[in-house]
Amino acid sequence: MRKLDSFDIVLVYKEDKGERLLRSLIGRKYVFACVIGSTETSLIEGITVAGASPQLTLYTPAADVEYLLLGQCKCIESIPITPEGIPTPALITRAALKLVDSPALVVDGGSYVKPCVPHVDVGGSPGRDIRTGSAVDYERALESYRRSVALGRELSKLCDYLVIGESIPAGTTTALAVLTALGVDAKNKVSSAMPNNPHGLKVRVVEEALMKASLAPSSSNDPLKVVSRVGDPMMPCFAGLVVGAVDRAPVIMAGGTQMAAVAAVIKFLREDALDNVVVGTTRWIIEDRSSDLRGLISQVAEVPIAAAVLDFSRSSIEGLRFYERGYVKEGVGAGGSSIAAMIASGGLVDSSRILSKVEEDYVSLKAKGYVE
Amino acid sequence: MRKLDSFDIVLVYKEDKGERLLRSLIGRKYVFACVIGSTETSLIEGITVAGASPQLTLYTPAADVEYLLLGQCKCIESIPITPEGIPTPALITRAALKLVDSPALVVDGGSYVKPCVPHVDVGGSPGRDIRTGSAVDYERALESYRRSVALGRELSKLCDYLVIGESIPAGTTTALAVLTALGVDAKNKVSSAMPNNPHGLKVRVVEEALMKASLAPSSSNDPLKVVSRVGDPMMPCFAGLVVGAVDRAPVIMAGGTQMAAVAAVIKFLREDALDNVVVGTTRWIIEDRSSDLRGLISQVAEVPIAAAVLDFSRSSIEGLRFYERGYVKEGVGAGGSSIAAMIASGGLVDSSRILSKVEEDYVSLKAKGYVE
Repeated sequence: MRKLDSFDIVLVYKEDKGERLLRSLIGRKYVFACVIGSTETSLIEGITVAGASPQLTLYTPAADVEYLLLGQCKCIESIPITPEGIPTPALITRAALKLVDSPALVVDGGSYVKPCVPHVDVGGSPGRDIRTGSAVDYERALESYRRSVALGRELSKLCDYLVIGESIPAGTTTALAVLTALGVDAKNKVSSAMPNNPHGLKVRVVEEALMKASLAPSSSNDPLKVVSRVGDPMMPCFAGLVVGAVDRAPVIMAGGTQMAAVAAVIKFLREDALDNVVVGTTRWIIEDRSSDLRGLISQVAEVPIAAAVLDFSRSSIEGLRFYERGYVKEGVGAGGSSIAAMIASGGLVDSSRILSKVEEDYVSLKAKGYVE
Repeated sequence: MRKLDSFDIVLVYKEDKGERLLRSLIGRKYVFACVIGSTETSLIEGITVAGASPQLTLYTPAADVEYLLLGQCKCIESIPITPEGIPTPALITRAALKLVDSPALVVDGGSYVKPCVPHVDVGGSPGRDIRTGSAVDYERALESYRRSVALGRELSKLCDYLVIGESIPAGTTTALAVLTALGVDAKNKVSSAMPNNPHGLKVRVVEEALMKASLAPSSSNDPLKVVSRVGDPMMPCFAGLVVGAVDRAPVIMAGGTQMAAVAAVIKFLREDALDNVVVGTTRWIIEDRSSDLRGLISQVAEVPIAAAVLDFSRSSIEGLRFYERGYVKEGVGAGGSSIAAMIASGGLVDSSRILSKVEEDYVSLKAKGYVE
């Protein structure tokens, strides 16, 4: 672990390479792309808290990106919260974007509820419960991947680098399934938005999924088949954006342990694409003892991991202080966006400015009745 | 009329302002956004040749942008052609984009056939025959406008200026209807992709549309209502993109006489948005005796008009030589894209390089059997 001088950023894996890459991006322009998707896996009781109820997890991705672009949600009244009322990490992502006035683009990998903001259609569709062993239609996954490659290519002409985030409830469970199917030891290593990571439930769901999918041992030859059986619609889209972009522009893959699954998919599609990539996440993921991002990524490829050293412990807002107790941790590219805002501003934006902006936005949402 | 020194561009209206604006963009980066849409007005026999048959006009917008991004179409086998076999102006647009390696983004204002390439959904829907007097649902038009404003705002952060084009068959007829309803004398002034502009037919269709729509004389107070009655789904989307972008980035409105209708819609929504705009078209529109872009724009606002001095008269390809006889003339932002490629390259890209590239692409399409 190494601190990146003059930034509230730490490098936690492949530090030299990560530092070189991030330093090359100081002051440069980026686009934040947020891939949204749904998997009916999120309806399984107890598997995710990315929504006030299992049914509401289907609205979370749309609501997250509506908040990102508009500062308020359209498809639901409040912003997305956990059943305990802890607010979405989209708060952090929007704050980071606003502090450096960076553009955001929504890409619909296949969401159940369509957001009431502009979103790019790449031909994806919502995913089924992975216990069916038939999570996403193969043709759809392939089309989504292909179109996303084309989109990534166009986006890479627009900016110096890309930051790509995601919002898909139950995404760590589908990540566990895909990682396992691709030969990565991921048991007890994927993260959760809960302090008590429900590893047992996730493992049971994944075991059932893998059994139903009856994938051949050589499945890594066709990672999109793995995705179509036990993955989710965010994955082919996210992987396509990365593959399309990296020839021209570096990519910050903004997320937690799901990024290991996306990286694994990319590895078996086009391994050299991972040479121009860094995973950007939050301190909360890095410090989480119930998951192991480093352990996952290191099994996949030599992709550096960087983390924004966010600290909400002294926040005046209780819901934000909960982030310090293992709730939420990451999502909607919160960590990678924070890193990008810090890097883009040459360090002017730091952890405390991000917190101040998040608090300011939260207070304004409360005044408007958008949070309790 | 004035030539822009060192460029194959002429200024034909508000020359000083236009020259200042274009010179300020030399060497700068742009994004090309192509708005697609359908109106069932294009099914009226004889009203448009933007497709080999009336039914095929519903495929043209999707096929145009597929060609733009992929170099080949997906939803139809060949590229879009007129009934006589004259190829789509998307050939010019793609050539111009490729010559300067500029990015393209497809925005779906409401197309009947969805393209098999990434496209931004702004909540629009295909338009009905305007003779119904109920062309687009008002709520949809409003939503499309709003989302497009949001998208235009994000896009304006990504580049120095925007070039926006369109593909919507029968768009000049809906333009005539909207211009008339907004108090612009547009009779015999809108353009056509045919050498024999069917003004009589257009006027009859528009008269029926306006009668059915029974718009109040003060309709200009709510131009989106006019669009919803007698317009098309490209219009609110295009207008929104312009309004969202101009505070930060100038816009080249790339098109022919339809741009007058879009400009009129913008004028009555937010007039000052037109201060940072130039209409970019082709020489063929400017020289067309059956239409009058200058006469239309000058009734709406002091928006400069620039034209790319394309010349296909010596092309080795017969279908392209037809452009010199009054066929096609413009579309898919061909003129504005050509201007942008010239400006972006500081004049390295000129009319003859664009023609060479179009010919090269056409020959390659022919070799693959994508044109006859």
